Amino acid sequence: MNTRIIEPCAGAYQYPLLIKSLLLSGQRYAPQQQIVCGQSRYDYRQLNERIARLANVLTDAGIGPGDTVAVMDWDSHRYLEAYFAVPMIGAVLHHVNVRLSTDQIAYTMQHAEDRLVLVHDDFLPVVEALADQLPSVEGYIQLSDDAQVAGTSLKTLGEYEALLEAAGTHYDFPDFDENSVATTFYTTGTTGNPKGVFFSHRQLVLHTLNMATTLAAYEGVPLLRSEDVYMPMTPMFHVHAWGVPYVATMLGVKQVYPGRYEPNRLVKLYRDEGVTFSHGVPTVLQMVLNCDEARDTDLSRWKLLTGGAAPNEGLVRQMAERDIRVYTGYGMSETCPLLSLSYLRPEETELSVEQQVAMRMRTGMPIALVDLRLIDEEGQDVPADGVSVGEILVRTPWLTQGYCKEPEKGAELWSGGWLHTGDVASMQPDGVLQIRDRIKDVIKTGGEWISSLLLESLISQHPAVANVAVVGVPDERWDERPLALVVPVDGVSVDTDTLKQHLAQFVDTGQINKWAIPSEIRFVESIPMTSVGKINKKLIREQLTTQA
Amino acid sequence: MNTRIIEPCAGAYQYPLLIKSLLLSGQRYAPQQQIVCGQSRYDYRQLNERIARLANVLTDAGIGPGDTVAVMDWDSHRYLEAYFAVPMIGAVLHHVNVRLSTDQIAYTMQHAEDRLVLVHDDFLPVVEALADQLPSVEGYIQLSDDAQVAGTSLKTLGEYEALLEAAGTHYDFPDFDENSVATTFYTTGTTGNPKGVFFSHRQLVLHTLNMATTLAAYEGVPLLRSEDVYMPMTPMFHVHAWGVPYVATMLGVKQVYPGRYEPNRLVKLYRDEGVTFSHGVPTVLQMVLNCDEARDTDLSRWKLLTGGAAPNEGLVRQMAERDIRVYTGYGMSETCPLLSLSYLRPEETELSVEQQVAMRMRTGMPIALVDLRLIDEEGQDVPADGVSVGEILVRTPWLTQGYCKEPEKGAELWSGGWLHTGDVASMQPDGVLQIRDRIKDVIKTGGEWISSLLLESLISQHPAVANVAVVGVPDERWDERPLALVVPVDGVSVDTDTLKQHLAQFVDTGQINKWAIPSEIRFVESIPMTSVGKINKKLIREQLTTQA
Repeated sequence: MNTRIIEPCAGAYQYPLLIKSLLLSGQRYAPQQQIVCGQSRYDYRQLNERIARLANVLTDAGIGPGDTVAVMDWDSHRYLEAYFAVPMIGAVLHHVNVRLSTDQIAYTMQHAEDRLVLVHDDFLPVVEALADQLPSVEGYIQLSDDAQVAGTSLKTLGEYEALLEAAGTHYDFPDFDENSVATTFYTTGTTGNPKGVFFSHRQLVLHTLNMATTLAAYEGVPLLRSEDVYMPMTPMFHVHAWGVPYVATMLGVKQVYPGRYEPNRLVKLYRDEGVTFSHGVPTVLQMVLNCDEARDTDLSRWKLLTGGAAPNEGLVRQMAERDIRVYTGYGMSETCPLLSLSYLRPEETELSVEQQVAMRMRTGMPIALVDLRLIDEEGQDVPADGVSVGEILVRTPWLTQGYCKEPEKGAELWSGGWLHTGDVASMQPDGVLQIRDRIKDVIKTGGEWISSLLLESLISQHPAVANVAVVGVPDERWDERPLALVVPVDGVSVDTDTLKQHLAQFVDTGQINKWAIPSEIRFVESIPMTSVGKINKKLIREQLTTQA
Repeated sequence: MNTRIIEPCAGAYQYPLLIKSLLLSGQRYAPQQQIVCGQSRYDYRQLNERIARLANVLTDAGIGPGDTVAVMDWDSHRYLEAYFAVPMIGAVLHHVNVRLSTDQIAYTMQHAEDRLVLVHDDFLPVVEALADQLPSVEGYIQLSDDAQVAGTSLKTLGEYEALLEAAGTHYDFPDFDENSVATTFYTTGTTGNPKGVFFSHRQLVLHTLNMATTLAAYEGVPLLRSEDVYMPMTPMFHVHAWGVPYVATMLGVKQVYPGRYEPNRLVKLYRDEGVTFSHGVPTVLQMVLNCDEARDTDLSRWKLLTGGAAPNEGLVRQMAERDIRVYTGYGMSETCPLLSLSYLRPEETELSVEQQVAMRMRTGMPIALVDLRLIDEEGQDVPADGVSVGEILVRTPWLTQGYCKEPEKGAELWSGGWLHTGDVASMQPDGVLQIRDRIKDVIKTGGEWISSLLLESLISQHPAVANVAVVGVPDERWDERPLALVVPVDGVSVDTDTLKQHLAQFVDTGQINKWAIPSEIRFVESIPMTSVGKINKKLIREQLTTQA
């Protein structure tokens, strides 16, 4: 298209969107505001100086533009410094998922070609075990919480704090292409090796600006403003801790980094440091709510953003009882991550916390700049009627542009020019999105998509059902048909007809259509689960296929 | 630099920053929220539809990518629609400054090569008078507030509302290069022809995102959040109405467009539509405060952003008495415009409105992503001591990349890779910026820069002084020396020594240094003023040179 593009005049500075720009405002707005982690407590001026020192340490260690630096740490001020210093010298920050198996960690570190590894004492045994398998690694920097540095067989350049102490306080951070990769990390599926996603400086700056607006401008989601105090409870290696450390630093808010998650300590930090905003997956929030310290602490100041999985009803009720203001976000590793956020409409903010909880638990509304569609199997947009389901396809300025060194998998992710989330959702007429299922678990029958999760939820409402799993099984006529595995409550007898009748009421109320009632219900003693406590549907389908 | 840049995989959508993306969220978040202008009142869904209709009208009129469309209108919903539709089809929106002389308007319209002109009935006489001088213009669209469309000799395509009515409701807005020019307008100095600045889609999107955060995230400047109601009082042709219409639309807030500024009507709209946030230059705010309607209206809900000139003490006091929350912004035509914003620190928000006013009137703090320096004549950064002054140099992602068709003037603006604002300021140790003077009015003496405005302010504090102007006059030894023209209060006698003694006290308190005391004070009957009521220092300097 022949739009008008005017060549910049001589001298005009074409400002690239680089992570270093996010550091300009925090120290101006709140130079004395604090960053807290364990015994460490310093202000934004010192944060900026420490980032410069770290950059000097990295450069002295031979790290240059394009090199990859891995971090293996709990949530800490050091990790925050690495969020900035590593990309700001033009290097790539590899967020190592320390929860993976040793084999998977080795795979990701080889695949990312890490050259330098910042490793916390707690992860030394893992790294020592696999150091032989990491030919690209030239050195290690040790991260110690104690004055007493742990002994190690690794060839370390020294301890982080000592190296920073010895380094210069100034670094002239260069300009470079805003499309340079800033971060990389790996996402694990049920099959195959972890896949590497990657994000550029431009993408992270745009994600930060947009998220800052999203968390501040809507009275129905007032999550993070200048006077808030932020403490992450989603690991910093996990999708940029949902992007919040960059937002918090740009705004100059007080930040509290809790190290390794220990529920009682998280609650103590909440109380003692005046924390107002945190985010975490439901299981972490559940742990926090159930710990001793939480029992006698007023938690009503806490604004919590949750996501990653749907919180169960018990947790939701518990949070309502504690007057905790909880909101739901939606995103994934491939999306930087934020795509949508629950919020309250003005009239809803008048309701009691308890009444608001269901609203806060909705997957919510796509945020600004997010172009989002729900499409069916034929690629047609599905109507926003709250019932029709389709796969969520998105376009935003902050989506991974593929998978590292796996062009075919990238092309699949981006089939048709839209990022396929693999999530199936419905959209209410008022624009509220509700995730229904993963596309691989959805049951495709007679041209309709049926949510296995919804069926499980409805079946589990029957008092005789202790546990239930629903999967699709191949069907010649209908393509697939739902099949339910049901574990009855101990000593209670229940049969297929009873459960089908139970489901018929939801057909009457319009929550499901009649094709959704499983053709077959099998009563079993137990349901196969994955190591993280999810129903292992892949295994169930395999077992069913083998039996057939 | 050899950073890592990974080629996007097949199909990956590289999201360009285009103005159309700003429209995604408003209608999702608040589909029923209103846009109000005169008799017109519609919601965000209709806004989006009307923008599509306007795009069809423009396309049918033969406007294509790269063409320029001029708008001559008061602040209206139509103008808001043009803010989006014109750039979204790839054309350039020329914001015509209707306050210029007819000759200057003709110059800017010729220079911008306008092809189509959207003209309000009130400006028909002007355009009819100069139509012969506009060979590039191929057609006009008439903007009428009344059902009775004004007669005109111009060859119009029709009236706006009728054309929209007849147009299609859908437009498939294309993607194109984010660096395409979206808007252009002209800035006038004291000499020479108006100069054209220009802004790209990318620049406007980034300005919008950053401004949205700035106006929402800081509790010390809570200007615009989702439940606010916005009404501009800075003309929409003036530097994108300071950028706020784009922010308001992205957030989905209620917007009220007041047409031609009539103080009583502005106050009525404030009251009847529930307006909470407006912006305007001090003279407009003064008019509004002094009008009849304001007398008995509670104005304390109003958050006002002012800028463009320093408000005088009387206005400041008046606003404090009315409990109006006023804040100051700084920027210029070349800067899109926002560069800095006053704000209150947490402890300052506890003070009374009256006590806060001086703080709100500070030029404020550079906003996020703004890189700002103060440099002296030798290009050295001046210390942030609240006294040393230097010219403000900036880099942000939203600065004009030159002047249209005037590469030399652009190169001068961007000398050394930084945009030279021509404003001289000091910076307090706490990072607060205070504009002191225009660089052409500052007095350069013995390597120091002295603010003529500060000297005038200090001299005017003497009870015998009715009016005062200070300019620099050439000096062989010191380069320049300050010279004051003083109009004594009627019937009061005052002499040079008295005023020099008066100034000596400010040397003692450290507000000025001893070289700032004028070498010469002349007593005069009047001081030459410009047509807009500013001291005409250019003329004073010329007269002094002629006399010498």
